[in-house]
Amino acid sequence: MKSVKDLLSQYNADFELIESAMKKHFSSHVPLVNEVSEHILFSGGKRLRPLLAVISSRLCGRNEDILFDLSIVPEYLHAASLLHDDVIDEGLLRRGKEPAYKVWGNKAAVLAGDYLYARAIDLASQFGDTRIAEAISKTVAFMAEGEIIQLLEIDNPSYSEEIYDDIIFRKTASLISCSCKIGALFANGSEEEIRALEDYGRNLGMAFQIVDDLLDFTADEKDLGKRLGTDLAEGKVTLPILTALKNGPRDDTERLKSILVKKSSDPKDLEWVRYMLLKSGSLDYSYGRAKNCIDHALKCLEPFDNSKEKELFHELALFVLKRKM
Amino acid sequence: MKSVKDLLSQYNADFELIESAMKKHFSSHVPLVNEVSEHILFSGGKRLRPLLAVISSRLCGRNEDILFDLSIVPEYLHAASLLHDDVIDEGLLRRGKEPAYKVWGNKAAVLAGDYLYARAIDLASQFGDTRIAEAISKTVAFMAEGEIIQLLEIDNPSYSEEIYDDIIFRKTASLISCSCKIGALFANGSEEEIRALEDYGRNLGMAFQIVDDLLDFTADEKDLGKRLGTDLAEGKVTLPILTALKNGPRDDTERLKSILVKKSSDPKDLEWVRYMLLKSGSLDYSYGRAKNCIDHALKCLEPFDNSKEKELFHELALFVLKRKM
Repeated sequence: MKSVKDLLSQYNADFELIESAMKKHFSSHVPLVNEVSEHILFSGGKRLRPLLAVISSRLCGRNEDILFDLSIVPEYLHAASLLHDDVIDEGLLRRGKEPAYKVWGNKAAVLAGDYLYARAIDLASQFGDTRIAEAISKTVAFMAEGEIIQLLEIDNPSYSEEIYDDIIFRKTASLISCSCKIGALFANGSEEEIRALEDYGRNLGMAFQIVDDLLDFTADEKDLGKRLGTDLAEGKVTLPILTALKNGPRDDTERLKSILVKKSSDPKDLEWVRYMLLKSGSLDYSYGRAKNCIDHALKCLEPFDNSKEKELFHELALFVLKRKM
Repeated sequence: MKSVKDLLSQYNADFELIESAMKKHFSSHVPLVNEVSEHILFSGGKRLRPLLAVISSRLCGRNEDILFDLSIVPEYLHAASLLHDDVIDEGLLRRGKEPAYKVWGNKAAVLAGDYLYARAIDLASQFGDTRIAEAISKTVAFMAEGEIIQLLEIDNPSYSEEIYDDIIFRKTASLISCSCKIGALFANGSEEEIRALEDYGRNLGMAFQIVDDLLDFTADEKDLGKRLGTDLAEGKVTLPILTALKNGPRDDTERLKSILVKKSSDPKDLEWVRYMLLKSGSLDYSYGRAKNCIDHALKCLEPFDNSKEKELFHELALFVLKRKM
C-alpha cells in the first residue's frame, strides 16, 4: 500500500492548478490588503481543503478546469478566519510567531479578513448555484460561532463533551465538510453522494481536531515542530483534559485544575499531566473517539466505485489517525 | 410639499415589517453572539437601507412580503461593518460611547461581526438569484477596502480628491447603492431600471457622506447631538480640509496642517479652521460637490412613472442636502 505522501505526490499537477487559482483571485485594488492576504495565503498551507473539493467533484463524475476556482473558496475562508482568530483580545497575547495583527495592527487584519471572506463568497457566487452560496455562508456562521463558544468555554473545566464536539465541529470540521460538499454540488452529485461526502468531511475534520488536541500531549517535539503542552499553558480544556477531569480520582482532578488555572508551562507539570492522562485512560478514550470518526468517514466512501480518488480519500482518513505532526 | 418626516411617516407599516424581519433572522445558537448582535442591531438605526431596498423593488413593480427579508440584508452588513470598524487598533481609542469591543472584547466583536456578515449572505442566498449574492459580496469587499484606504490615508494631508471619492464610495455609498440594486434585482427590473437605481443610491450615498463631513464644521451642536470638530480632533482629512489645503494661501495651509498633526480639540483652533474653510471657499466647494451628486441622483429617477415611491426618493435626495444632523 502506498504512503499518503506518495499518493499526494500523484496530485502535484492539481496542486499547481490550485496554487495558480489562489494567486489569480485574491488581488485587491488596495496594496495593503494584498500584502496582508499574501502573508496569510502563501505561508505554507497544504491546500488540503482545495484538494478535498477537487476530489469530491471527481468522485461525483465532474472534472473541469473551472473547478479549481471553486476549490480555493474554502482556503480563502480558512485564511480569513485565521486573520480574525489572531486578533488580539484586550491585550492578551498568544503564540510565538508574528501574526498579521502584530505586523499591520488589529484593524488592518480584521479588514483584510473581511475582504478575503467577500472575495471567497464572490467567487462562489459566480457558479450560479445558490446551494453553494448557502453552504458557504452557513459555514462562515458556524466558524464564527465555534470560535465564540471556544472563547467562552475553553478555560471552563466543567464543560461537557457535547460542547467540545460542538466547538470542534463548528470551528474545524464544518469547513472541511463544506469543502467536500461544494465539490459534490459543483458536480451535481446525487443527494446520497452529496450527503456522503459532506459526512466524510465532517468526520475527517472532527478526527483531525481530536488528534490535534491529543498531539499536544503525545507527540514527539521534533516531529511536531513546536513545544508540547501549548494548550495546557493556555489553560485550554481539550478532550483529553475534559475526560480526565470527569473520570480521574479527586486528588488528581484537583491538581489538574490548579495546573490549568495557573496556565502552567512548567515541564514538571506537563510531565505529570501526561502521566495522569495516560493512567486515567483519557488518551485512549480520546483516540477511540477519533477512531470512531474515521470508521464513520470510511463508511461514507463505500457507495462510491473504486478509483484512485476513492483510494486517496481512504488513505487520507487513515493518515489522520497516524499523523505525528 | 410634504416634509421628509411626513413622507416617512406614511411608511410606518413598512418600518414595522422591517423591524420584525430584523428580529426574525439574526438569532444565533450562541447567546453571546445574540447579545452583541442585539447591541448593534437595535440601537436606534433609522433602517433607511432596508427602506431603500423596499422602495426600489416597488419602483420596479414588485411588492411581496418576502421582500422585507431581503431588505434587512444591507442593515446586517452595516451592523457587521460597524462592529469591525470599532475594533481597537493597537490601543488607539476613538469616540465617546461604549462600542461593542469595549463591552465584550475585540475578539467577540470581530466574531459577532463575522456571524452577521454570514447571516446576511445566507439570507440573500435564499432568494435563488446569484446576481443578488454577487452584488452583496462585491459590496462587502468594497467596504473592507474603503476602510483600509481610509486607515492608510486619512491623516495624510496631501491625498487627492480622487482618493477621497474612492474612500467614500467604498465605505459609505457602495452599501446604499447595493440596497437599491438588490431591490431592483428582486423585482426583476429592466437593465435600465437596475442601473438607474444603483446610480441613484451611489449618488445619494456620496452626497450623504460629503454632507456628513461638512456638518462636522458647519452644524449647530444642538442639532447635531455631538460636538463639532470631532474629525479635526482625530486629524481626519475630509473634503473641506482637502480643498482648503489645496487652494488656501501658504500661511493658512501650514497652520491648518499643524492643527491636524496635533489632533487638536482646542475650541480656538476649531473656530479658526471654520473661518478658514469658509474664507477659502472650501465649504462652498464641498457643498457644491454634494449638490452635483444629488442633481445626478434626481436625474436617475426621471425614467420612472410618477408614484408616491418616486416622490419619496425625490424628497430623500433633497433632504440629504438640507439635513442638519
